[in-house]
Amino acid sequence: MTTFRLVLEYDGTHFAGWQVQAGAQRTVQGCVEAALQRVTGQVLRVTGSGRTDAGVHAQGQVASVALDTDFDADGLRRALNGVLPPDVAVLEVAPAPAGFDARRDASSKLYAYSIWNGPQSSPLRARTHCWVPPALDIAAMAAAARYCVGRHDFSSFQAAGSATRTAVRSLSRFDVSGESRGDIRIEVAADGFLYHMVRSLAGTLIEVGRGRRAPDSMAAVLAARDRRSAGPTAPARGLALVRVCY
Amino acid sequence: MTTFRLVLEYDGTHFAGWQVQAGAQRTVQGCVEAALQRVTGQVLRVTGSGRTDAGVHAQGQVASVALDTDFDADGLRRALNGVLPPDVAVLEVAPAPAGFDARRDASSKLYAYSIWNGPQSSPLRARTHCWVPPALDIAAMAAAARYCVGRHDFSSFQAAGSATRTAVRSLSRFDVSGESRGDIRIEVAADGFLYHMVRSLAGTLIEVGRGRRAPDSMAAVLAARDRRSAGPTAPARGLALVRVCY
Repeated sequence: MTTFRLVLEYDGTHFAGWQVQAGAQRTVQGCVEAALQRVTGQVLRVTGSGRTDAGVHAQGQVASVALDTDFDADGLRRALNGVLPPDVAVLEVAPAPAGFDARRDASSKLYAYSIWNGPQSSPLRARTHCWVPPALDIAAMAAAARYCVGRHDFSSFQAAGSATRTAVRSLSRFDVSGESRGDIRIEVAADGFLYHMVRSLAGTLIEVGRGRRAPDSMAAVLAARDRRSAGPTAPARGLALVRVCY
Repeated sequence: MTTFRLVLEYDGTHFAGWQVQAGAQRTVQGCVEAALQRVTGQVLRVTGSGRTDAGVHAQGQVASVALDTDFDADGLRRALNGVLPPDVAVLEVAPAPAGFDARRDASSKLYAYSIWNGPQSSPLRARTHCWVPPALDIAAMAAAARYCVGRHDFSSFQAAGSATRTAVRSLSRFDVSGESRGDIRIEVAADGFLYHMVRSLAGTLIEVGRGRRAPDSMAAVLAARDRRSAGPTAPARGLALVRVCY
């Protein structure tokens, strides 16, 4: 058995997310497993670093798989790219230590949330950006983001009904860049993320940018540990998993 | 009658180009005319600054239209955006002098051609970039481009069978930027373009970047005035009309 680490890029627009689901939904994991079956003849389970929701993109999702194969890493990458649909690509394949698990072994992840802040919708950004027409105050958004950096209980930014052992996570980075009335990019890195956490953080920063919340209100939102205290969940299309560190 | 100047952005992926054609093809011009008819009740003809081919995008196509209307420019923009499909947007509407013609009055246009030079395909760039896997020599491409700046006969970069009065055009700018093994952007501005000219120029620069042609071979290609002396026509998806000057 050889264990491989795969780095994947995908356009999430036409996927019902990463994870294989009951029913006939098209998922990234399902496409990768079908491609592996086609090139190896084996029914295999691929483990992603985490789920991405329907419509969420990845520039560097990581997955692990163990298989009996004659392929080396380069051969496996080429074979998979030969059979994958155009909205998923394997950027890298590398041998990994036996037992490597892309989910369990991940030490941190970086997500980017992209906003188009122009007055009109942008057809060329429609799949990858959330359109927010009113001018956003980027300095206020950046100030609000700084309240979240560090170790906090992020219960207020977790989708209602999630069952996780703890909502404490460590944000190592939460930056806002770009320009009002143009492209705005939010980048957030942490040791782990709760369900809908980045989209809830982005939705709350957008409210700050619109002047509906003060930047320093973030401290109270964190302290509330109540989803209702934060802003709405921003749309999936603006979100991309940029990279996973091990 | 009021004449308006419209600035349009569109994702060309699902259009059979700008221009209305015989048959039931979906075109940008057809969508804009249908939207105008819906909001004004009038059957109108819109004039674009020029045709874009099937699959070619625009960040700033300009069109003119004359109509009897109670709408002011802002109202017309909002009304059109309310009925246009998501892959076309009206970025600006402004009153124009009577007789303004977006095609005849254009003094120059800027096009961008985008290349993804990574070793694997990029799903997130699939609609907007041409994928060229072998590493490209950007300095060589930029050197080749410089041979084309100025006033030249561009017959070698014109699709076979085109009937134009003259193939002499003035390129004011032809730049190559970005990085090998990453994103590469070609920008070209001229007083006018021949059919498939930017895509033929891009296809020829890609051959230079791959080392199949020397940069200084561009002088001979121009002098030949023969389409067969230049490189292939690069794919439509990498091309975008950035702006039109008047």
